[in-house]
Amino acid sequence: MAKAIPSRSENYSEWYNELIKKADLAENSAVRGCMVIKPYGFSIWEKMQRALDDMFKETGHSNAYFPLFIPKSYLSKEASHVEGFAKECAVVTHYRLKNAEDGSGVIVDPEAKLEEELIVRPTSETVIWSTYRNWIQSYRDLPLLINQWANVVRWEMRTRIFLRTAEFLWQEGHTAHATADEAMDETRQMLDVYARFAEEWMAMPVIRGAKTPNERFAGAEDTLCIEAMMQDGKALQAGTSHFLGQNFAKAFEVQFLTKENKLDYVWGTSWGVSTRLMGALIMAHSDDDGLVLPPKLAPIQVVIVPIYKNDEQLAQLTAKVKPVMQELRKLGITVKFDDSDANKPGWKFAEYELRGVPVRLAMGMRDLENETVEVARRDLKTKETVALEGIVGHIQSLLDDIQKTIYQKALQFREANMFRVDTYDEFKEQIEKGGFILAHWDGTSETEDAIKEETKATIRCIPLDAPEEEGQCIYTGKPSNRRVVFARAY
Amino acid sequence: MAKAIPSRSENYSEWYNELIKKADLAENSAVRGCMVIKPYGFSIWEKMQRALDDMFKETGHSNAYFPLFIPKSYLSKEASHVEGFAKECAVVTHYRLKNAEDGSGVIVDPEAKLEEELIVRPTSETVIWSTYRNWIQSYRDLPLLINQWANVVRWEMRTRIFLRTAEFLWQEGHTAHATADEAMDETRQMLDVYARFAEEWMAMPVIRGAKTPNERFAGAEDTLCIEAMMQDGKALQAGTSHFLGQNFAKAFEVQFLTKENKLDYVWGTSWGVSTRLMGALIMAHSDDDGLVLPPKLAPIQVVIVPIYKNDEQLAQLTAKVKPVMQELRKLGITVKFDDSDANKPGWKFAEYELRGVPVRLAMGMRDLENETVEVARRDLKTKETVALEGIVGHIQSLLDDIQKTIYQKALQFREANMFRVDTYDEFKEQIEKGGFILAHWDGTSETEDAIKEETKATIRCIPLDAPEEEGQCIYTGKPSNRRVVFARAY
Repeated sequence: MAKAIPSRSENYSEWYNELIKKADLAENSAVRGCMVIKPYGFSIWEKMQRALDDMFKETGHSNAYFPLFIPKSYLSKEASHVEGFAKECAVVTHYRLKNAEDGSGVIVDPEAKLEEELIVRPTSETVIWSTYRNWIQSYRDLPLLINQWANVVRWEMRTRIFLRTAEFLWQEGHTAHATADEAMDETRQMLDVYARFAEEWMAMPVIRGAKTPNERFAGAEDTLCIEAMMQDGKALQAGTSHFLGQNFAKAFEVQFLTKENKLDYVWGTSWGVSTRLMGALIMAHSDDDGLVLPPKLAPIQVVIVPIYKNDEQLAQLTAKVKPVMQELRKLGITVKFDDSDANKPGWKFAEYELRGVPVRLAMGMRDLENETVEVARRDLKTKETVALEGIVGHIQSLLDDIQKTIYQKALQFREANMFRVDTYDEFKEQIEKGGFILAHWDGTSETEDAIKEETKATIRCIPLDAPEEEGQCIYTGKPSNRRVVFARAY
Repeated sequence: MAKAIPSRSENYSEWYNELIKKADLAENSAVRGCMVIKPYGFSIWEKMQRALDDMFKETGHSNAYFPLFIPKSYLSKEASHVEGFAKECAVVTHYRLKNAEDGSGVIVDPEAKLEEELIVRPTSETVIWSTYRNWIQSYRDLPLLINQWANVVRWEMRTRIFLRTAEFLWQEGHTAHATADEAMDETRQMLDVYARFAEEWMAMPVIRGAKTPNERFAGAEDTLCIEAMMQDGKALQAGTSHFLGQNFAKAFEVQFLTKENKLDYVWGTSWGVSTRLMGALIMAHSDDDGLVLPPKLAPIQVVIVPIYKNDEQLAQLTAKVKPVMQELRKLGITVKFDDSDANKPGWKFAEYELRGVPVRLAMGMRDLENETVEVARRDLKTKETVALEGIVGHIQSLLDDIQKTIYQKALQFREANMFRVDTYDEFKEQIEKGGFILAHWDGTSETEDAIKEETKATIRCIPLDAPEEEGQCIYTGKPSNRRVVFARAY
């Protein structure tokens, strides 16, 4: 039978951990805070990568690769940047091991000390802008639109698989522009790309907004973000897009000759999403039976389980099912036919539920006689018996419907858990129950910090589409002209 | 005009370096030995990755991801493995920076010392086999067929862009099997995949062989390799596939229950190719005018340059060319239409030659009148005027022909530079002139070392298809029963 996982209501956090384990997505490694992404989990990440990469290329970006290591002095060049990252840097100090003289094994060779320590990149602005310096001379070299798929390391003290790990995989876009406007347009464009990916691929509705100065990327003038609601009502920042102004250009002396033949500093952006999206995907849709995957990101979209007593029956079922599989594959639908006799159908059903396969077909001898097949959808856990004739078209529209239904369900959940709150008492009460709170804020860091201190809620973002509305800060009563989104967050 | 590069005969090494620079493939970074792969270079690497990844998946492998860091103690578990890698390990010793008390900037925080130092992976056998221990219990869990795309670090003292860099990108397959035979079959299968990729995609003929014990991977029982000849007659090892026996299984206690219900150690393989292939690709085919790329790996397969004097002419040419481009794209052919007025056609011709675009179309007003187009092929540097009617089919077969021609040219070059040599005097003379030498060897490390010491030639491999042939070692006169391949190598 199914490997059971705790229910969400029992223990949300344990449900998450066990689901990741039982669905074979990832595990913690022996290296503190570093994860192993297992083949099934990685195949979901590969689908995400492919879709995002296509979107980056459609918007004119090229991939490149920059060094893993950053000289310590580079990191220091942008003051707020080093401030933001110094406390979580893995530092390479030596380049050789040697045998210990007492024969106890290998030790770090003290004679192989680096002249300058190297930081394992926590993000690549510094090493990339130091490179851009040589790539950019005139306005003709701009815009420079580059993305990198890479691993990065941030030595976090408390880690959580996919959500916060010492090493994670991500993409980081780094662009350079001739004007502030162009850079700001790029910042917004990439936020839109992320939002579109989250909504159309991950079936996860997001709020587009700007971070408060407190929550900005270290070195950015403005940080835009997409925020998603998880099923426990907490927020998850799913992607960020930063307007860097001329900060990194100034730190690394990246100047260009304008059309008017004047020297000016280049304007920059950077933007990234990471394997954190895997955590978001899991927590947005999955249920107590396991993963629920949107069909567009499911490594296996349809599984077919034959129900048979002997080889002859299996042969008959296989013959019947084969043309269906071929037709599905022609349409680009990923199908698995599980005829292994190591496990019983019931076990298989539970296993594919756990792994979030969107559509399951089961076919036994009676179906064979009746020219039917049993079709089960993972998201709603409904079953129906469908005629084999026209089954391919049926599955195709079913997959579309599942993609939409999962999105709608998540959207309805979010709508039902967004609260407009006007007093701090109400706020404190609501925040304990979960959800996003739309409230007025006076715009100061002090107030933001105080609320965070008292309630563990942070301002997730100032929504880009927030309407102007006069009001009073829930904490200080000072005037405010738009509501911001508060929530507890991952 | 074209940015000139030195000729191969003048200075092969400078030709290589300048070509990489001028064709915009890569550059050295400020971090010693680490390269920046520029967008054009990276787009070639992406094509290689995609083709290889498809081949790995077709042969049943899945991708996964394992940690960048390896605890020092893991590396030591397999004796010859640590022996092989200890001298070139980047070591992480600390996890935090802090502000220096004298205000001089950031320093490594001495209080943030790791309990156990971490090695930046030079290869991942140790961290992967320590993980496999938990994944494998019984023969039902085997074979385990996993690949990883990753960056690795080997702190080489003398580096050379693409060929030998401190950090490089690669894929590493790591498989586990129930029997020695199955593992050996896998080792050979993956060598075949590499050979097929080298020959069919890179248009680079390779010799499949086994390494001598001296040249084996640290921790392997047998190392198979593909060796290619560069245009200076030197050899380049383009890929390796290792039979690990039970070495890593024993080091990491990976046992499984056999069908017969007995405990046994698992059999392993590992295999990899890296960004080194970029160096091989460049040196195998390119000429004094720049890159020569096989069409299957060219980021731009066809470039179209309109030759015009004013906007009206350009509009006419564009209208004529557009349907051709659409048809080419429908066939999956990558086309660039370069109508920028920043550069003259002559400059563009030289630029696309430098970048190795396989086919260049040029069209001026006379072509427009005559319904023709000028077609130039990069590899042979021939031009012809071709009727526009049927041009798409013409280009398609031209691309096929270029792919084949480049391969044939490289093959002929190799054949012309393979020498059967029977005395050491002849050997010493020939090795100075370059090329591969097929000679008898007595099978001992001592002889191999002596020859290497005296001539800088190494045994590249014992070809898998070497016929049995009685003979005498060129160095010691001792009996030998097959010829091995000697060469100087990158």
